[in-house]
Amino acid sequence: MIRIPFEDVRLELRRVLLTRNCSEEKADKVAHEMTRNSLEGVYTHGINRFARLVRNIEEGIVRVDVMLTVVNAFGAIENCDGHLGLGIVNASWAMDRSIRLAGQYGIGLVALRNTNHWLRAATYGYQAAEAGMAAICFGNTMPNMPAWGAVDSRIGNNPMALAFPGPRGAVIVDMAMSQFSYGALEKALLEGKQMPVDAGFDTQGRLTREPAEVIASGRPLQVGYWKGARLSFLLDVFTSCISLGNSVSAVGRLPGNEHGLSQVFIAIHYRSIAPEKEADAILEGALLDLLRSEKDKDTDRITWPGLRAIETREKNLAQGIPVDERVWAEIRALG
Amino acid sequence: MIRIPFEDVRLELRRVLLTRNCSEEKADKVAHEMTRNSLEGVYTHGINRFARLVRNIEEGIVRVDVMLTVVNAFGAIENCDGHLGLGIVNASWAMDRSIRLAGQYGIGLVALRNTNHWLRAATYGYQAAEAGMAAICFGNTMPNMPAWGAVDSRIGNNPMALAFPGPRGAVIVDMAMSQFSYGALEKALLEGKQMPVDAGFDTQGRLTREPAEVIASGRPLQVGYWKGARLSFLLDVFTSCISLGNSVSAVGRLPGNEHGLSQVFIAIHYRSIAPEKEADAILEGALLDLLRSEKDKDTDRITWPGLRAIETREKNLAQGIPVDERVWAEIRALG
Repeated sequence: MIRIPFEDVRLELRRVLLTRNCSEEKADKVAHEMTRNSLEGVYTHGINRFARLVRNIEEGIVRVDVMLTVVNAFGAIENCDGHLGLGIVNASWAMDRSIRLAGQYGIGLVALRNTNHWLRAATYGYQAAEAGMAAICFGNTMPNMPAWGAVDSRIGNNPMALAFPGPRGAVIVDMAMSQFSYGALEKALLEGKQMPVDAGFDTQGRLTREPAEVIASGRPLQVGYWKGARLSFLLDVFTSCISLGNSVSAVGRLPGNEHGLSQVFIAIHYRSIAPEKEADAILEGALLDLLRSEKDKDTDRITWPGLRAIETREKNLAQGIPVDERVWAEIRALG
Repeated sequence: MIRIPFEDVRLELRRVLLTRNCSEEKADKVAHEMTRNSLEGVYTHGINRFARLVRNIEEGIVRVDVMLTVVNAFGAIENCDGHLGLGIVNASWAMDRSIRLAGQYGIGLVALRNTNHWLRAATYGYQAAEAGMAAICFGNTMPNMPAWGAVDSRIGNNPMALAFPGPRGAVIVDMAMSQFSYGALEKALLEGKQMPVDAGFDTQGRLTREPAEVIASGRPLQVGYWKGARLSFLLDVFTSCISLGNSVSAVGRLPGNEHGLSQVFIAIHYRSIAPEKEADAILEGALLDLLRSEKDKDTDRITWPGLRAIETREKNLAQGIPVDERVWAEIRALG
């Protein structure tokens, strides 16, 4: 593990994207957001995933030369076609559009079809929070998780983020509908560790914390068992039906690696009905009460949702972003 | 257990509400929805909770003689004060208002403060679905669940529903942020049963399926462990800050039983940008794929979210609603 300054990483990702025919503007955006993800501790959706993005561009399932187009619009809601463009670029554009609609109408919803992995759901939550708005964003994925009571994967571990701006920074939750990602399972397997709670089912259908068992069965645990399985399906229905795009099932039928996803971006200009000062005071009251919680004996401290990203950011800004040497060498070798 | 026709239950609840100074309109609404909850299998939020509602009216924390008022409005979003009125009446009114806003702007959001228990989150999802709209609704509760890593209850098992209309009926998820309600734990305890999965922590901080252990520790399991704990906090922040109402923490400080809650109702008139026929086809494709899942050996069948309510409704319409005799006697005795 080496530590590399934010700016060095960003410029290196930007350099590679420019060699793949990205415009300066798109290269800037994608390099910035992926570096920021690592900076804030979301390593799986930052630098570690960059080589895969470049492969996806080379495969032609991520297209760097397209522009999102609006399909249908009515008042504060719109659906758009991403034409398989860069996931981060499309999603940022869609959230920006949703924020503009919310500025006009109080709330905006943009549904996006034929897009690609947005990397980190929180990115678009922060984008709204920086504009003084609350956000609800969710998207679908390829089939990678079974329905409740099923063996084969027909639903997605669909991501969802809720963000609310506050005086200490955005309060935010960014969660996939599986308890652990395959990335987290593989990491634990390499390190010879068990997962801290049940992570899925083994091939006999028994709950297990052993990452190898879950990888073997292909049955990661749904968040909250039947609850997350159902919520995942609803998120898929919302994204695909409103955008007129691919459902998880349809994504699974596309040839090649995961692409052609559907996403929804809701921005809420709540300050138009709830003055910032009053809303901030209510948020601060809730937050202070949360932090007063009595800790369990194994708990270091209680945090509020969003604090860790701020702290990791500060640490990595000061010390450099921790990067696996092989990952870094692979990116440097991309010409 | 006896079985009573829908109409007999409804008229009996209506009769009692009229003796408690409810208007005919409000008595009709509350009696209908609470009876419907039992009809569709949500017994905990139907007839079984009726005597408690009547007690809450007598305590003065549910007021039958107030009307919801709009506080602030901007385009497609509004916040309202429920003045501690009947939870079902306030929530139905707020969702109706959100549906009207969505009809005009494509999407509507109504945030409601100083209201009471809405009984079943799905009610308002169905309400939107019947108007041809999708819905996202959520609310807060009194403090009844610990934050992640905490021992004492400072967050709520805040309910959330997502609903989407479809040709087979609404696809719907209605979930609280705890894996099991205290009602479900108490029922299992009485029946001498374990919960089917981990239900919370014991007083030593270990995960357990024993309802008695969870009731003793007061530490029910958050949906998806840390994920649901964080989502619960975000839902509380959204509801309380947008409505300028009580957060979970503030609800906990009010004297007496749970009251003065905050809720959010989002209606999405998606058919204005996604023609019904096309959206229905995408939904049906996703649904059929889900039903093609290979069952685990212990699974009877795979269902889609919303089917069980339809089936239970049909059965209970034909055979009568199953009602505990003591519960029925208690309601009959209310004069």
